[in-house]
Amino acid sequence: MEFILTILGSGGAQPAQEKHPSAQILQVNNRFFLIDVGEGTQIQLLRYGFSHQKIDHIFISHLHGDHYLGLMGLLFSMHLSRRQADLHLYSPPGLDEIILLQLKHARSSLSYRICFHPVKAEENEVLFEDEEIRIESFPLDHRIPCSGFLFAEKNRQYRIIKEKLPTNILLQHIALLKQGKNVVDEQGRILFEASEYTRPPHHARSYAYCSDTAYNPKICSIIRHADLCYHEATFMESDIQKATETYHSTAKQAGRIAKEAAVKRLLIGHISARYKKPDELLIEAKSEFEFTELALEGNSFHVSRSS
Amino acid sequence: MEFILTILGSGGAQPAQEKHPSAQILQVNNRFFLIDVGEGTQIQLLRYGFSHQKIDHIFISHLHGDHYLGLMGLLFSMHLSRRQADLHLYSPPGLDEIILLQLKHARSSLSYRICFHPVKAEENEVLFEDEEIRIESFPLDHRIPCSGFLFAEKNRQYRIIKEKLPTNILLQHIALLKQGKNVVDEQGRILFEASEYTRPPHHARSYAYCSDTAYNPKICSIIRHADLCYHEATFMESDIQKATETYHSTAKQAGRIAKEAAVKRLLIGHISARYKKPDELLIEAKSEFEFTELALEGNSFHVSRSS
Repeated sequence: MEFILTILGSGGAQPAQEKHPSAQILQVNNRFFLIDVGEGTQIQLLRYGFSHQKIDHIFISHLHGDHYLGLMGLLFSMHLSRRQADLHLYSPPGLDEIILLQLKHARSSLSYRICFHPVKAEENEVLFEDEEIRIESFPLDHRIPCSGFLFAEKNRQYRIIKEKLPTNILLQHIALLKQGKNVVDEQGRILFEASEYTRPPHHARSYAYCSDTAYNPKICSIIRHADLCYHEATFMESDIQKATETYHSTAKQAGRIAKEAAVKRLLIGHISARYKKPDELLIEAKSEFEFTELALEGNSFHVSRSS
Repeated sequence: MEFILTILGSGGAQPAQEKHPSAQILQVNNRFFLIDVGEGTQIQLLRYGFSHQKIDHIFISHLHGDHYLGLMGLLFSMHLSRRQADLHLYSPPGLDEIILLQLKHARSSLSYRICFHPVKAEENEVLFEDEEIRIESFPLDHRIPCSGFLFAEKNRQYRIIKEKLPTNILLQHIALLKQGKNVVDEQGRILFEASEYTRPPHHARSYAYCSDTAYNPKICSIIRHADLCYHEATFMESDIQKATETYHSTAKQAGRIAKEAAVKRLLIGHISARYKKPDELLIEAKSEFEFTELALEGNSFHVSRSS
């Protein structure tokens, strides 16, 4: 049961050699969620061994080019591969219009359906939910409407200790144990005690993606205790004025958010190409929050279910 | 005085690992002409040491994604670099609308002016002309409006043999010699004979770019005797039916065009990702036209002025 984030690109808006703009893929068990799709994402997917056939959900934080310009090429490639399955696209309004205009001029209609889910950047919204996972958006503070995304596993069932279970136990009793409930008879006597026949559920893992944003401590309550948190760190604290002007964060501010939200691990990226030594931004973030790493292109971050 | 074509990408529509879609840059003396801008072109420019600051003219053959999806990212990067100079963009109509819509949603206005030159795909047109070069478009035969481009140096001046020239010769006499004309006095007597004081002009070089197209021998009269010719070769002759259906060419057909047009060198590219051995397409094209090479990514092709 995997929960793995892979960085496909984490460069700033201005491209640099061998640095791709924002794109990440989160594997949760058998699902692959694509988060932002900077230019070149489809080539990066190939490079790191991901098939676009497995992607059914794409999340775009905002409509600055370095976060979505790889989408159209990916959509065309899915079409050329004769995709049939619906594709769910979560984005601020406008991306639908951009896609339709480009399809019009290419005189193309796709082999599959795009289910477009407009994201309201000013609200918290549940974008997707099933038995395993809930995905929420939350407002960030950027020059244009911009959302972060929280991917949270749901609390799982208690785990049956099979070797202790009598062979003749009824299925409905197992179902009760999986909910952590004792099995009692009609007189209220305990037949099977949950604590004896089960182990506690696995830890429900979570990942918070905080795309382009000014320092915004309002997000802390939403991303609190996330196992893994990505936060942009475009500038160093010495350039805080530039950060404020452009609605971006400094590495120090990213660290402060991680500390205030008490996340377990922080990844920083979207570092401006002006900084030739990203380690300096890492040191700055670590001065606030020790468990910080660089979101380096090609790196994968595993979250264990025993976290 | 350089005339160098560099291939930034020559993959087919479906991306393959380490193969970028169509993009080329032609250097003619101090000018850099960008021809088609597939996704990832700005990264490829960086990789091969070209500065986008030097590009003032961009030519887009048609509005299929693999020929223009890298443009928007490049335009944004030029803006982030605070470009001031006008940018001339030659493309089928519609690309202007696509750019404006994306700028609108990014709430951005560029730091420079784009001069948009709509190209009529059904006509031959002179798109650009100065003392050194003339650039023409010509119709190709594709599923949507699509143009080829011919970059032709103009006939240059006769070259003065300086060591033979008397020191007291008048400037207007030099100007006549440079045109290959004898200098005569009022009585019609020859003062300086052009053939004695000059060498013939350098060869005027040319490059023909034949983007996506079905086999279309009508183009031969336009690209005749080009020093260098790129022609797409998406399929092998054994898949000619697919080529016909999709308005593409086979490698054999590309060779046939080169032979009929009597170009000097042929480059083939846009090879479908289905073929794992591009050399087989090269052999096929060579069976028609010996001087064929693969338009491999990162390769440069020099045209000498003594060609």
